[in-house]
Amino acid sequence: MFKRIAAFGEVMMRLEVPGYESLSQASTLNYSFSGTGVNVTSALAKFGYSTYLVSTLPKNAIGDAAISYIQKLGINPSFLRQDDNDLGMYFLENGFGARPSRVTYSNRSGSSFNRAEEESYCFDKIAKEIDIIHFCGITLAMNDNVRRQMKNFAIAVKKAGGTVVFDCNYRPTLWGEAGYEKAKPHYEEMLHLADIVMMNEKDAKFILGMETDKEDRADQLMELIPSISSKYNIPVIAGTHRSINRDNTHSLQGFIYKNQLFSFSKKITFPVLDRIGAGDAYTSGIIHGEINNFSSDKTVTFATTAAMLAHTVVGDTPIASENDIYRAMRETNSDVER
Amino acid sequence: MFKRIAAFGEVMMRLEVPGYESLSQASTLNYSFSGTGVNVTSALAKFGYSTYLVSTLPKNAIGDAAISYIQKLGINPSFLRQDDNDLGMYFLENGFGARPSRVTYSNRSGSSFNRAEEESYCFDKIAKEIDIIHFCGITLAMNDNVRRQMKNFAIAVKKAGGTVVFDCNYRPTLWGEAGYEKAKPHYEEMLHLADIVMMNEKDAKFILGMETDKEDRADQLMELIPSISSKYNIPVIAGTHRSINRDNTHSLQGFIYKNQLFSFSKKITFPVLDRIGAGDAYTSGIIHGEINNFSSDKTVTFATTAAMLAHTVVGDTPIASENDIYRAMRETNSDVER
Amino acid sequence: MFKRIAAFGEVMMRLEVPGYESLSQASTLNYSFSGTGVNVTSALAKFGYSTYLVSTLPKNAIGDAAISYIQKLGINPSFLRQDDNDLGMYFLENGFGARPSRVTYSNRSGSSFNRAEEESYCFDKIAKEIDIIHFCGITLAMNDNVRRQMKNFAIAVKKAGGTVVFDCNYRPTLWGEAGYEKAKPHYEEMLHLADIVMMNEKDAKFILGMETDKEDRADQLMELIPSISSKYNIPVIAGTHRSINRDNTHSLQGFIYKNQLFSFSKKITFPVLDRIGAGDAYTSGIIHGEINNFSSDKTVTFATTAAMLAHTVVGDTPIASENDIYRAMRETNSDVER
Amino acid sequence: MFKRIAAFGEVMMRLEVPGYESLSQASTLNYSFSGTGVNVTSALAKFGYSTYLVSTLPKNAIGDAAISYIQKLGINPSFLRQDDNDLGMYFLENGFGARPSRVTYSNRSGSSFNRAEEESYCFDKIAKEIDIIHFCGITLAMNDNVRRQMKNFAIAVKKAGGTVVFDCNYRPTLWGEAGYEKAKPHYEEMLHLADIVMMNEKDAKFILGMETDKEDRADQLMELIPSISSKYNIPVIAGTHRSINRDNTHSLQGFIYKNQLFSFSKKITFPVLDRIGAGDAYTSGIIHGEINNFSSDKTVTFATTAAMLAHTVVGDTPIASENDIYRAMRETNSDVER
Amino acid sequence: MFKRIAAFGEVMMRLEVPGYESLSQASTLNYSFSGTGVNVTSALAKFGYSTYLVSTLPKNAIGDAAISYIQKLGINPSFLRQDDNDLGMYFLENGFGARPSRVTYSNRSGSSFNRAEEESYCFDKIAKEIDIIHFCGITLAMNDNVRRQMKNFAIAVKKAGGTVVFDCNYRPTLWGEAGYEKAKPHYEEMLHLADIVMMNEKDAKFILGMETDKEDRADQLMELIPSISSKYNIPVIAGTHRSINRDNTHSLQGFIYKNQLFSFSKKITFPVLDRIGAGDAYTSGIIHGEINNFSSDKTVTFATTAAMLAHTVVGDTPIASENDIYRAMRETNSDVER
Amino acid sequence: MFKRIAAFGEVMMRLEVPGYESLSQASTLNYSFSGTGVNVTSALAKFGYSTYLVSTLPKNAIGDAAISYIQKLGINPSFLRQDDNDLGMYFLENGFGARPSRVTYSNRSGSSFNRAEEESYCFDKIAKEIDIIHFCGITLAMNDNVRRQMKNFAIAVKKAGGTVVFDCNYRPTLWGEAGYEKAKPHYEEMLHLADIVMMNEKDAKFILGMETDKEDRADQLMELIPSISSKYNIPVIAGTHRSINRDNTHSLQGFIYKNQLFSFSKKITFPVLDRIGAGDAYTSGIIHGEINNFSSDKTVTFATTAAMLAHTVVGDTPIASENDIYRAMRETNSDVER
Repeated sequence: MFKRIAAFGEVMMRLEVPGYESLSQASTLNYSFSGTGVNVTSALAKFGYSTYLVSTLPKNAIGDAAISYIQKLGINPSFLRQDDNDLGMYFLENGFGARPSRVTYSNRSGSSFNRAEEESYCFDKIAKEIDIIHFCGITLAMNDNVRRQMKNFAIAVKKAGGTVVFDCNYRPTLWGEAGYEKAKPHYEEMLHLADIVMMNEKDAKFILGMETDKEDRADQLMELIPSISSKYNIPVIAGTHRSINRDNTHSLQGFIYKNQLFSFSKKITFPVLDRIGAGDAYTSGIIHGEINNFSSDKTVTFATTAAMLAHTVVGDTPIASENDIYRAMRETNSDVER
Repeated sequence: MFKRIAAFGEVMMRLEVPGYESLSQASTLNYSFSGTGVNVTSALAKFGYSTYLVSTLPKNAIGDAAISYIQKLGINPSFLRQDDNDLGMYFLENGFGARPSRVTYSNRSGSSFNRAEEESYCFDKIAKEIDIIHFCGITLAMNDNVRRQMKNFAIAVKKAGGTVVFDCNYRPTLWGEAGYEKAKPHYEEMLHLADIVMMNEKDAKFILGMETDKEDRADQLMELIPSISSKYNIPVIAGTHRSINRDNTHSLQGFIYKNQLFSFSKKITFPVLDRIGAGDAYTSGIIHGEINNFSSDKTVTFATTAAMLAHTVVGDTPIASENDIYRAMRETNSDVER
Repeated sequence: MFKRIAAFGEVMMRLEVPGYESLSQASTLNYSFSGTGVNVTSALAKFGYSTYLVSTLPKNAIGDAAISYIQKLGINPSFLRQDDNDLGMYFLENGFGARPSRVTYSNRSGSSFNRAEEESYCFDKIAKEIDIIHFCGITLAMNDNVRRQMKNFAIAVKKAGGTVVFDCNYRPTLWGEAGYEKAKPHYEEMLHLADIVMMNEKDAKFILGMETDKEDRADQLMELIPSISSKYNIPVIAGTHRSINRDNTHSLQGFIYKNQLFSFSKKITFPVLDRIGAGDAYTSGIIHGEINNFSSDKTVTFATTAAMLAHTVVGDTPIASENDIYRAMRETNSDVER
Repeated sequence: MFKRIAAFGEVMMRLEVPGYESLSQASTLNYSFSGTGVNVTSALAKFGYSTYLVSTLPKNAIGDAAISYIQKLGINPSFLRQDDNDLGMYFLENGFGARPSRVTYSNRSGSSFNRAEEESYCFDKIAKEIDIIHFCGITLAMNDNVRRQMKNFAIAVKKAGGTVVFDCNYRPTLWGEAGYEKAKPHYEEMLHLADIVMMNEKDAKFILGMETDKEDRADQLMELIPSISSKYNIPVIAGTHRSINRDNTHSLQGFIYKNQLFSFSKKITFPVLDRIGAGDAYTSGIIHGEINNFSSDKTVTFATTAAMLAHTVVGDTPIASENDIYRAMRETNSDVER
Repeated sequence: MFKRIAAFGEVMMRLEVPGYESLSQASTLNYSFSGTGVNVTSALAKFGYSTYLVSTLPKNAIGDAAISYIQKLGINPSFLRQDDNDLGMYFLENGFGARPSRVTYSNRSGSSFNRAEEESYCFDKIAKEIDIIHFCGITLAMNDNVRRQMKNFAIAVKKAGGTVVFDCNYRPTLWGEAGYEKAKPHYEEMLHLADIVMMNEKDAKFILGMETDKEDRADQLMELIPSISSKYNIPVIAGTHRSINRDNTHSLQGFIYKNQLFSFSKKITFPVLDRIGAGDAYTSGIIHGEINNFSSDKTVTFATTAAMLAHTVVGDTPIASENDIYRAMRETNSDVER
Repeated sequence: MFKRIAAFGEVMMRLEVPGYESLSQASTLNYSFSGTGVNVTSALAKFGYSTYLVSTLPKNAIGDAAISYIQKLGINPSFLRQDDNDLGMYFLENGFGARPSRVTYSNRSGSSFNRAEEESYCFDKIAKEIDIIHFCGITLAMNDNVRRQMKNFAIAVKKAGGTVVFDCNYRPTLWGEAGYEKAKPHYEEMLHLADIVMMNEKDAKFILGMETDKEDRADQLMELIPSISSKYNIPVIAGTHRSINRDNTHSLQGFIYKNQLFSFSKKITFPVLDRIGAGDAYTSGIIHGEINNFSSDKTVTFATTAAMLAHTVVGDTPIASENDIYRAMRETNSDVER
């Protein structure tokens, strides 16, 4: 079913040290442009939807390069603005074995997106041209101005009859000290506006301050998610449990809660090439399943497989087609395709 | 024992996306030149034989580059022709984990090799200057003209007292619909002419249409191969069973059937760097064993180890020396050699 | 003034040996996707127009990569089809001094574009959604089927009230022996349909077989172009004279003939980084001038400057913005911009 | 004569697109760390002095990489602080011919250096351990806090008996509107404190607002510099005149004014590989000449040759040894050195 | 506790074939500079010590490059000499799976370090400016002249009250035939001079010719090390047991023997990126523990963890900070750090 | 006319810093294998001759890589030996403008070639299988052993009826102090044995100590070469005069002296990409002209053009075909070849 899907959020420049060297050892960087919104809309474009990014980029060579890159991903650039001079950046040094990957952010607070004036976007107009809007908790952490834009945009989409997707995506370093307290009211506003929410029991406990006497993660999840769904009136809640194994593989199990029922994917284990952005592939799978009225079982398996494939791809941004995901749902190990 | 060994077949340009990016993500390619004939004769050159390739390459910069590359591998270029403008190509995107490697062929049917006129080669003359000739089923799939060249060449070598090696190497996409039926008569002609045949029970079942009520691959093999050997009068038949494991290692077991007796290598399991061309390393090991009258046990272990090492090498073409293979037969894991 | 501009033509994969090595020396290639249509619509997209490419690309990883690349350039992919398996390719080895650059074509006649069936495109529908269509003589050289498509498309655009641009762009190797004779009737058909034609006196003499007793190129031009304009009823004819200097700089002078009057740019001389595609930048400048009713003098200077800048850019495809061109019209040598 | 020489100023990360691609076309960057202070102290370290940088770098992987790089240049890191998270950056796209090189700054105002608190450095202590300190007008443009640090440091060095070098280096984009008016009082303070000043007649006219009715640059220089020297009591003033030629070579003529006398170098013309940082090589040559009591003629020739060589080197930072400069003073064109 | 630590030994140029190609396949090399002394002092510089290298490098572009590289690592270059023209080199081809990594030495015997005259260094003067000196058995294998320098230096340091560290590091190919007999007297001299010795039971058995009737490595170790400690009067002896596992992981267990007591680390198992130089990281950990009077348990765990991390880093030279090692002691597998 | 041509001499590893960085700045090297003998026989192989190299290479991965590379160039490896461990190397840093290219030799005296025992080669046997042998003065500078080998080989070839080519190629740094005196007797022996000699008037004056009162190079040449030809009984003497121009172009004029007559090429001027090895291209042109009995005028023009083209090619080794040279003799500047 054809849909027009947009995301609101910051575009960042990813500057990756090639191979396994550190920033002190190397002298070249690979760069690309990503962000939660970029990743989700790019993944959905690969499934055949018309997708848009609503954001502000710098009005210089860096912003131009970001737009070229976003177009290459198949995202429609019509709702992108260019203003001011700075783009948020992050440097990525790839870890190996017991040496973890390391991300160093630079220049985030002063970015064009975070300093765009409140009236910069015509949310009412955009809301009429899209069916689904995606927001995430990273954007919510930025500043008051951006938070107001985000909520106004959500309200505009609801008014126009669209669907609001909200990914909780809490990042402790962005909220700083006493972050959960600061964050809670904003998260609650977004939860009230959202139709599909990406979260798990940790968000319930830490952000919303909910309590449980269960010890096991799965038990906590099954206790807390239904009350959130009912309290904030959220039709669909989905998320994952990830564990990192001793042999450097990761394991992932997806869940979806809908119509008072949980569905879980199998727990799958796989080697990891590039972990960043895999959660956004999961979100794209949930949205695709919901648009097409997949059964919850199929949706959660599709989304978990999309997430797994996103770990096998260079860069933050998922590139799997619907067919690639179906094949990976069928097969586990394969010889060369020729 | 010194021998002159040639192969007849197409040279292809391999265009590989470096690392794990897709063709849509990257902007550079690594190129080299390969093909079953290139791989087998290159591997045998490393063992000290004089080796030749009998083929047609384009008469332009691409063909010149292919010849330089073939010379670098130590193959004698005397029997290479240059004519016409096109070389078959394949693009390789490396997979990771559940994302399979992907090969995209380009420009195959119109290649200089496939369009060379029937009288292009002096097979009688060449047959007198070589001891062993290698053919494969990929060449057999090309077109009538190439098939006729191949059979005439085999007949010329037999007449001159040489040895004919034939690798069944059936590729479904090349034969298209009802491929097995189309292929069978041509395969049968080649089997009648061959002294050493590379195949396994799948070729027997699918190409030759043989039936068996055994279920296990090994049982099928032990039933079918002896009847083929006797029906087509083939002194030596050899091949492998490959399985792909959940942790992305492969397992390989080689066999040889000779003098009514089977010999099997141990099943060995190993990580894989570059899977393409490993079967050709196996063939080179069988040929080397037969030339030197190794015991069947030694031949099959040597060939299987050669195949394993070929999986650890960049590119299609095996580079192991005889000593490298003997060392790998003795040791499994080794520290730095210095 | 806003316009929707399309081009009809083949997309090719450019495979460039980096630096100054030959294909025999190197082992990596830089790849991109280009073609006259790609270059012209990309250049016009940088000026702010909505641009489209009407073409057929292979339905595989190569075609997908071409589409990503075309989107990156800012061209709308809506009118691109994917079918069949082959893309025309060319290998580029960069020359130095007295050693010329060398282009080796591969796989051209069998490309998806050249084998697309006549009914593949909905020209009537597309004609209604565009204002200007661009064709070139390279496409005209392909085969009867493509030629028919091209003429039908031109007729459809005329019927819908659009403007037809035709770049003569005669390539001797594509037409083969007695090429001018074969080409002439097809060129005449296109000239009758065209509103803006890119050509110079050589096309008049060789393709159209016109005669002149003038010796000087400029004199021949001023004699022949007006008769063509009147014979084929072409409102605007434009083109360039190029000369290559001993110090490896090139000199370029543009002309435009309109309303019975010639305008010439100054002859400008400049160093060359990448010569391929510069003619397409000139075309884009002429189209931009005509859309905006520039004076002929301004149009021809703008177009010649656009062509000069295209020589200073990596790859076939122009990337200059309107502002970049205006600045280069004002200044000749500049220090770092910061 | 051995000296300990320090510079106070910002370290920046240089992110250069390799070759001649734009940031929109490429996908990799070469990075290094530079800045006026880095360049001057690195050049002087190559002449055998102990050199230091007094600056603040981020306390993260980016800052660590900058320190490694500065150490590699032979600069002593003892007076470097690490604090906060941001480093000023600039992206460099190399021009070709009429397409100018383009520098895009990012993240400058929020850098660790520019946000370091006033009391961050122990200027009195450092002043006792050095003989010469170098400042530049770029640092002066940053903010009030940095300006105060700079002036306090200059005063401390004077008190400790050291020499103050000040490079006027006015950057219009950093001072913004009405920049000359804002800048003048700060420049005047620094001129009163300085022993060696790098400037030319443009600085006199624009920053200090001096007037002259001469038209020729050289005449203006010879009128204005002596009055500045006497008004601000500056023993040595030196600088260059640069012109950019049609064939993309640059011409440079250096001057020095000392003891009421001008000395000029010959005007030299040369091809340019990397123009950034060449002015800092000139400064290093003047400092070296003054330390060693070269004649003014020798000093100005040495400095101009050092500047020329800095144009032939990759990156911002000069790498020529004293011997390299003497040889280039003797010879103009040379064959391979072996 | 602050210490000044030096190492005496050869610097080598490491020329690594990138990726997994062989020297016959590739056409580029990555180069860096290393050696046991470089690795140990670089690792200790990362822990905050002032470190020095005492060595001789060629007086040409290769020597200059080595010094830049050593400075980049944070090692003080004051005690480096430049003389003569040659630097020892080694080429590294990375193995994969059953194909071992291969090191090919070049130009070792004629290196500037190995040909430096006996009186080249002022050992007495240097001994007064350092607290700890590190030697290794590789240097001991070079030639008589170098051996004499090494022993004189050790004596000078003892006289000045410093600590002598000696790493046995026996390399069979350097000592040649009957190597153990040749080596023994030199090793014994060094053991008598040393305060901290790196070795294990193999050195005891093969170099010192000690006998044991234990079969197990651990039992042999526990029998032999105490007698060495007492015979040569060595306060601290430390070392490791390494095993290479079938899945290409390595296992490492460290020990320290001090005050008549053994302490052992846990045996840890980990994947390996670059094995060369990991032993030097272990040494640096032991030295750090001894300087700071860590308990033996803490020292041996710290050193073993440092060695493990050195396997995860590109190049021979450890780059982990003290904090990196403490974190790896706490955690085993971690997600991205951001 | 078909000929078998060999060269006797050292193969060196060329390690080039990519682009214009210095060895201190960069971290990667491009490597290839060259030497006068490699260059001459490779150039002649491109003209269609069977060519051989007679040399000794190390018996390790470095020697294997050299052989692969030599085969790639089309040179027959049958007369190559592998022994010992070292290969001569040189590092190349590319200059720019006034900064000259710099070559740093490493490991030359201890190379496998220079240490090969006198009886290593079967010169009598080889002499029978070749028609022409090439020697050069670089080999003559090595050591007594190599000199004896060279003379014995020359004598063997003369005895077998072959042609001896000798390139004087005097390298001052190799002969050291009082080099001309040491060299003269060895050069005289070779001149007596040679049929074709490459030299100019400088060799006559400096090596042979001949005197002239002419001042102009051309006059000196015309006086001295004929007496050498007559004194040593040399049928053909050829060489070049090179000058380096202010704009970094080089000028070259070739001469040949034969049958008491001089022929000169035009003096040609051209830009330079890679100067090393161009003299060897000139030699190959002279040999080709002599084999085919070109007129002296044609020979000298062909050789000079071959030398010019060798300056436009990456690496030491010429790659031009006979056709490439003929085209460059006809044309000076050309557009893209397609």
